[in-house]
Amino acid sequence: MRFSSCYIPTLKESPADAEVVSHKLLLRAGMVRRLTSGLYVYLPLGLRVIEKIGRIVREEMEKADFRELLMPMVQPADLWKETGRWEHYGKELLRFKDRNEREYCLGPTHEEVITDLVRGEVRSYRQLPVRLYQVQTKFRDEIRPRFGLMRGREFVMKDGYSFDANTEGAEKSYKAMYDAYMRIFRRLGLRFRAVEADTGSIGGNFSHEFMVLADTGEDTIAFCHECEYAANVERAEVVWKGQPATAACPAMEEIATPGAHSVEEVATMLGVPASSIVKTMLFKADGQTVAVLVRGDREVNDIKLKNLMKVQEVELADAATVQAVTGAPVGFAGPVKLGVPIYADAELQGGTAYVVGANAADAHIKHVDLKRDAAVTAWGDLRTITPEDQCPRCGGRMELTRGIEVGHIFMLGVKYSEAMHAVFLDENGKEQTMIMGCYGIGVSRVAAAAIEQNHDENGIVFPPPVAPFECILLNLDPRSEEVNAKVEEMYTMLQGRGVEVLMDDREERPGVKFKDADLLGIPTQIVVGGKGLARGIVECKDRRTGEKGELSADNLEQDFAAWIEKVRQGWADR
Amino acid sequence: MRFSSCYIPTLKESPADAEVVSHKLLLRAGMVRRLTSGLYVYLPLGLRVIEKIGRIVREEMEKADFRELLMPMVQPADLWKETGRWEHYGKELLRFKDRNEREYCLGPTHEEVITDLVRGEVRSYRQLPVRLYQVQTKFRDEIRPRFGLMRGREFVMKDGYSFDANTEGAEKSYKAMYDAYMRIFRRLGLRFRAVEADTGSIGGNFSHEFMVLADTGEDTIAFCHECEYAANVERAEVVWKGQPATAACPAMEEIATPGAHSVEEVATMLGVPASSIVKTMLFKADGQTVAVLVRGDREVNDIKLKNLMKVQEVELADAATVQAVTGAPVGFAGPVKLGVPIYADAELQGGTAYVVGANAADAHIKHVDLKRDAAVTAWGDLRTITPEDQCPRCGGRMELTRGIEVGHIFMLGVKYSEAMHAVFLDENGKEQTMIMGCYGIGVSRVAAAAIEQNHDENGIVFPPPVAPFECILLNLDPRSEEVNAKVEEMYTMLQGRGVEVLMDDREERPGVKFKDADLLGIPTQIVVGGKGLARGIVECKDRRTGEKGELSADNLEQDFAAWIEKVRQGWADR
Repeated sequence: MRFSSCYIPTLKESPADAEVVSHKLLLRAGMVRRLTSGLYVYLPLGLRVIEKIGRIVREEMEKADFRELLMPMVQPADLWKETGRWEHYGKELLRFKDRNEREYCLGPTHEEVITDLVRGEVRSYRQLPVRLYQVQTKFRDEIRPRFGLMRGREFVMKDGYSFDANTEGAEKSYKAMYDAYMRIFRRLGLRFRAVEADTGSIGGNFSHEFMVLADTGEDTIAFCHECEYAANVERAEVVWKGQPATAACPAMEEIATPGAHSVEEVATMLGVPASSIVKTMLFKADGQTVAVLVRGDREVNDIKLKNLMKVQEVELADAATVQAVTGAPVGFAGPVKLGVPIYADAELQGGTAYVVGANAADAHIKHVDLKRDAAVTAWGDLRTITPEDQCPRCGGRMELTRGIEVGHIFMLGVKYSEAMHAVFLDENGKEQTMIMGCYGIGVSRVAAAAIEQNHDENGIVFPPPVAPFECILLNLDPRSEEVNAKVEEMYTMLQGRGVEVLMDDREERPGVKFKDADLLGIPTQIVVGGKGLARGIVECKDRRTGEKGELSADNLEQDFAAWIEKVRQGWADR
Repeated sequence: MRFSSCYIPTLKESPADAEVVSHKLLLRAGMVRRLTSGLYVYLPLGLRVIEKIGRIVREEMEKADFRELLMPMVQPADLWKETGRWEHYGKELLRFKDRNEREYCLGPTHEEVITDLVRGEVRSYRQLPVRLYQVQTKFRDEIRPRFGLMRGREFVMKDGYSFDANTEGAEKSYKAMYDAYMRIFRRLGLRFRAVEADTGSIGGNFSHEFMVLADTGEDTIAFCHECEYAANVERAEVVWKGQPATAACPAMEEIATPGAHSVEEVATMLGVPASSIVKTMLFKADGQTVAVLVRGDREVNDIKLKNLMKVQEVELADAATVQAVTGAPVGFAGPVKLGVPIYADAELQGGTAYVVGANAADAHIKHVDLKRDAAVTAWGDLRTITPEDQCPRCGGRMELTRGIEVGHIFMLGVKYSEAMHAVFLDENGKEQTMIMGCYGIGVSRVAAAAIEQNHDENGIVFPPPVAPFECILLNLDPRSEEVNAKVEEMYTMLQGRGVEVLMDDREERPGVKFKDADLLGIPTQIVVGGKGLARGIVECKDRRTGEKGELSADNLEQDFAAWIEKVRQGWADR
């Protein structure tokens, strides 16, 4: 394609409102434009990236025997009322009425619609499994749309769904998707990890997230250096393997700690390690106030609390609640004589003689033996994993790293099929509920994540499978007949070989073309100029390594074939 | 693809609520399902048809140097307020508010968004022309969604837009689109016509519609047998070439016509031809009441009235208005002493001594000379063309036929760019307004139109370029090893040749497979059964003609190549 006939409005400066690097570079490279909060136009080059990702996703979905369909974006409220999500989904679900005052929403996901479709067609186990997917524009009315394509309101998503007759079948469908996702992200040329994850608002029995590794990721993942275990820190298990403490504990003693609200302040004031202090935090769990205890050097994991208590929603209690329950301001809560259920992290069993808040302003209690002095309702895994923890599977060394969630697969079980009565007759003519799975990939987010992972100070460094073009052909002197002729020869040759090539035919200075070529991140740059031709060569550059090469002007095709193979291999070996 | 792994829920019976044949057949062939009023799910086979159409559309758009982008479906109200369409568009524009109470709509079309995009980037004439398009899901809150994909609320549309520096450039862009549309519909294998059309609510200077010819079409088009002229009857010009009547007319005379309201009743009662009666109809034109006169055997064309009067909206006056203006019930209006502006069809100048309504119940007036007895405001082309009229260009013989509008291109001029201040600096540094064009194709409607034009009593008869597969391979005996082996051989061979093939591997009776194959409308059926193989042959059938052939089991590939060539040629020669 010729640059002049494409619409690639590159920018010299980063727009002030772009917060993350992918957003900045997508804007600067003329790939997207913001229409309004959370709504973006994909310009031709950006759309090519989306299409490239979409093609690989589709190919692997089809290989896994999932078939593509397309459901409406606008969905009737009735279906959402059947599953209860009309009430529970929150404001991200954009609800509205049509001209006849009937209620609808803009689809943020399609479990209800697909379940309605399948329950209308499937009668017998012989029609199962059903495996379907779509690539579609979704809408979620985010409270704070930001980071460009990373957290927009309208975005392109691949959502797949499976319906099986039994658990074994459902696990096969899930496994087929897990494997397909591994192939997809490998083929996209991204460094990524599949991790165990929490099922969140989609619900279901278990799930995996697919994380593109990038320092700028919003998520943290923990993985083992010795085995395959990897999980979102939201969920990564901490197995306490210590022995319960048996040492005798002196009697409790209240001590003044004026103005010491935080663990650090208390530790400093008393000259004790944070690990000898118990952090007591109050939460509202589905409306009920509860206390959670972890060691002073640990963090409470509210998702683990939610799962341990089997509740829907958990949030930190506000200051008024803390005051009402403990009789003290925030910073002095403790488990002694506390009138609410207490959930304690298992690790605390390994110590005794802890320092805890006294439930009174400016006071703590020392020499607290939790088993003796507090009414613990349950012990469990309630803290977030740290790099010092051991792998819950093999005991190996763990590492924490940042990632961007680009895919998520869920074993849904019967959550939706039961609510919507999606049933079939089994071999014995008995009615059974279908077992479902759902499988998402944020297609437009993959584009942003690819950039977060692959860029430098000069711009994007696209992995070849995601790049809008494989080569950019720079005409350094569009006024020279000789240069023009060689550029056209090269262009025709590349197209003949099936190489996707963007020819920069603009009337611009070489400096502008070099800068834009780097900015766009196309893997190979081919530079045709008068000086090179005088030496009988055409230059090329590997965008990733910066390495330069020369193609003999008389042997362009063969030299190019060797070059492109080297670039591809370099990416593969990375 | 294997039928068993695809999701093709065919139906034996036509669903009761399907009104038109394409809707019935799309449902029966398992290509679409209705979610709710005007909202459809495209099942895998239906989506393949949409994708096939989309691919051809995209290829021809790119050839015309239009580049694909993707704009949001959700659009901010502000842009629509700039053009005034927020107020004027009517209830088809679905408006809603987001969680922050900001106003949005679901895009029925994207003139505002694209103009906003381009005005933000283009500064100089050197950046023009800009030619962009998208293939996207649109939403129009139709008052009466019906006919399946023909008039749904959510539908797939290709919308293209051009921005030029001057009229010559804009005309070049328009011509490039006209030519691209001709190529698109030719490549799709459809019988169609490009016709001059009214610009309707999109506005602009002139436009062409692309009509798929089908008896069930909602539109009527008039075309000339001798020249290229073709137009929607809404617009088809009628040129009156007669001489003004000069014969003396007797004095007016009121006559009783009790109960005779219609032209037919008056003609019968008085024993005169309908052509000697003047039909007087009252309209509201942007709120003002006016009268329109046409010959008794003609129909008033309200779009011509709108264009002649240069008003926005024209509708038939209600009975109360007729009573108030004429002093008589509906059926007795006439131009004599009528206190509102009178617009008369040019043809009426050719006659005299007309019969007209008397503006009094049960009375008409005869011997009316319109020039003498009525205060005609303007004469003009105000009636709908008939097959008896001559071609306005060459005087040739006209014919009327039914069509389905599948494409529409508009020369918009500065309607949107002026309202939204989309300007640039010309060669002399002077600010100029961009000249726009917009170009739509109803991609999902093309699928329905293809079926309306091509079907028989057994089902769909898809033109090969639109068919979800080119061949369907019927395994008549999945329990026979010999048959299975030959089917698999054939399947592999076809895929190797790049033929898109659907293999019916289901455990169903041959009768079911034959019926479904006819229903799906795939151009070639290949039938592998034990009886044929015993004779050393595989049967095939041309879905369009019903013609059968035999492929030698030992020479499958060559025989098939000859067969498929014949089928394709048959379609081309049709």
